[in-house]
Amino acid sequence: MKRYTIGVDVGGTNVRLGLVNRSGAIVARAFFETKSFCRNKKKLIGAIIAQTWDLIKRERLATKDILGIGLGLPGPIDSKRGVVNFLPNIPGWKNVPLKNIIQKKLHIPAFLDNDVNLITLGEWTYGAGIGCQNLLCMTLGTGVGGGLVLNGALYRGEGFAAGELGHMPLNEKGPDCNCGGFGCFECYVGNARLQKSAAKIFKNKSIQLQDVFLLAKQGNTRAIRFWEETAAHIGNALVGVVNLLNIRLVVIGGGVSNNYRFLGPKITDVIKRRAMKVQSKMVKVVRAKLGDDAGIIGAQVLVKEAIRER
Amino acid sequence: MKRYTIGVDVGGTNVRLGLVNRSGAIVARAFFETKSFCRNKKKLIGAIIAQTWDLIKRERLATKDILGIGLGLPGPIDSKRGVVNFLPNIPGWKNVPLKNIIQKKLHIPAFLDNDVNLITLGEWTYGAGIGCQNLLCMTLGTGVGGGLVLNGALYRGEGFAAGELGHMPLNEKGPDCNCGGFGCFECYVGNARLQKSAAKIFKNKSIQLQDVFLLAKQGNTRAIRFWEETAAHIGNALVGVVNLLNIRLVVIGGGVSNNYRFLGPKITDVIKRRAMKVQSKMVKVVRAKLGDDAGIIGAQVLVKEAIRER
Repeated sequence: MKRYTIGVDVGGTNVRLGLVNRSGAIVARAFFETKSFCRNKKKLIGAIIAQTWDLIKRERLATKDILGIGLGLPGPIDSKRGVVNFLPNIPGWKNVPLKNIIQKKLHIPAFLDNDVNLITLGEWTYGAGIGCQNLLCMTLGTGVGGGLVLNGALYRGEGFAAGELGHMPLNEKGPDCNCGGFGCFECYVGNARLQKSAAKIFKNKSIQLQDVFLLAKQGNTRAIRFWEETAAHIGNALVGVVNLLNIRLVVIGGGVSNNYRFLGPKITDVIKRRAMKVQSKMVKVVRAKLGDDAGIIGAQVLVKEAIRER
Repeated sequence: MKRYTIGVDVGGTNVRLGLVNRSGAIVARAFFETKSFCRNKKKLIGAIIAQTWDLIKRERLATKDILGIGLGLPGPIDSKRGVVNFLPNIPGWKNVPLKNIIQKKLHIPAFLDNDVNLITLGEWTYGAGIGCQNLLCMTLGTGVGGGLVLNGALYRGEGFAAGELGHMPLNEKGPDCNCGGFGCFECYVGNARLQKSAAKIFKNKSIQLQDVFLLAKQGNTRAIRFWEETAAHIGNALVGVVNLLNIRLVVIGGGVSNNYRFLGPKITDVIKRRAMKVQSKMVKVVRAKLGDDAGIIGAQVLVKEAIRER
């Protein structure tokens, strides 16, 4: 009986690996920095394979103990064919058949998906969204990501690009966005924007978001207002999703969600006031439970589902 | 072999019935005004039953020829239990077990859904959306409605209230909306608002939207600009849906879509310029094909699916 899956979370900064047992717990880990391999696709893939192999050996396991390996990558992924379409923040990746490459080297079934989709699968199966049929998982960080579970299944969209919550417009006119659009939700609450706005408010170029959080905790009114305004933007974006999709749950994760205490009540308040009655009564906003491990744990869900469907 | 279904489209103004054959064609019709029964729920239900019965007899059919009756109603419907939760524009309807009431009287299996959901099912199966796995059907009229087909199935949401496209906010600040929110899409492109804005632009209180369409056709620049601005609002609202859901198709129906010629190209243009590349390349905006018949034809799809699932 194959007891483990391996989850690989490929980020722009770090690659994190985890050996996950059948209950969704990470029982061993590995880690390396992405940037050493950033310009060389082959080397990055080689490092992932080497680290996976090390992890298996270190735990005195063999390929026969591993059900599969699941990889989450930051970009649109054709999860059906196992091809990385492209990675906006890691150059050199275009139409890479990563599933086949990894399977050939490791002789373990491999599956790919978008990183936020894996976080969503993790929170849905083992975290804040257990038992929910319709939910949105939002990640607040450098960018704003989204993953959707609809009718009890991950919703990937026509071209595996669904969930781009950060690029729903908040206003008809607004600041230019990296995506080519403008007025996107991410332009108001992405880390860069928040940091810039905090530097201005506190007349301090080196202030960090964590500092603004501590100030708010101490009762600083400008800091409290800063988080309230951020929460209002988040609430306004969620009103559209809640009215359109009538979801049961919004799970908020990512770095900025560490300040959930100052964000949560105001986000809920905006939704209750602005969204339609049936929809707003039904929806609950909660903080993610699995933290940085969600993607690795979600990879287990991906692997199990993919193998069951074969 | 049961050859027909009966579709009933219950609107705030009219109730329209159709006998639909197995190919989705309407082969006989009936019709009456809602307002005569507007204040009396029992009489309205009685009239629907009487008209259905008349239609069957007029066509020299019997209950054994009818696979089922599908009813579309303007409000949130618990389509699983067959209960009308409430109808915002027809007073006196709250938690009405219409499915059971009709089945008892007619001895024909009855099924209910929201009217826009039936339009969506109709366009998806027999109209502009044939073969599509992920689409949005938008109805532009007094209100702005939406229906979603996701992963090849109608998406109803946690409490059967999904699809409220008209109440996705277009801006963080904006005009008050009937729904209790503000800045909703419908506040910018609902018929009342368009009529008011046309009256102002043309300094003519009795001008109709159809007149503005004719003026645009004649080359009147103010009229052309009027439709272009309307289309820009529609495009802006769709950018959010396209980025979030990565749908293949947007089907535009409802009264205002008669002016599709002046709306379509601009809507497509806004999406192509403002939405993300993968999503905007993949999506197509088209005009609905079934006109006012979509709901009655969609009722056939509802009945067939419901009976297959039993």
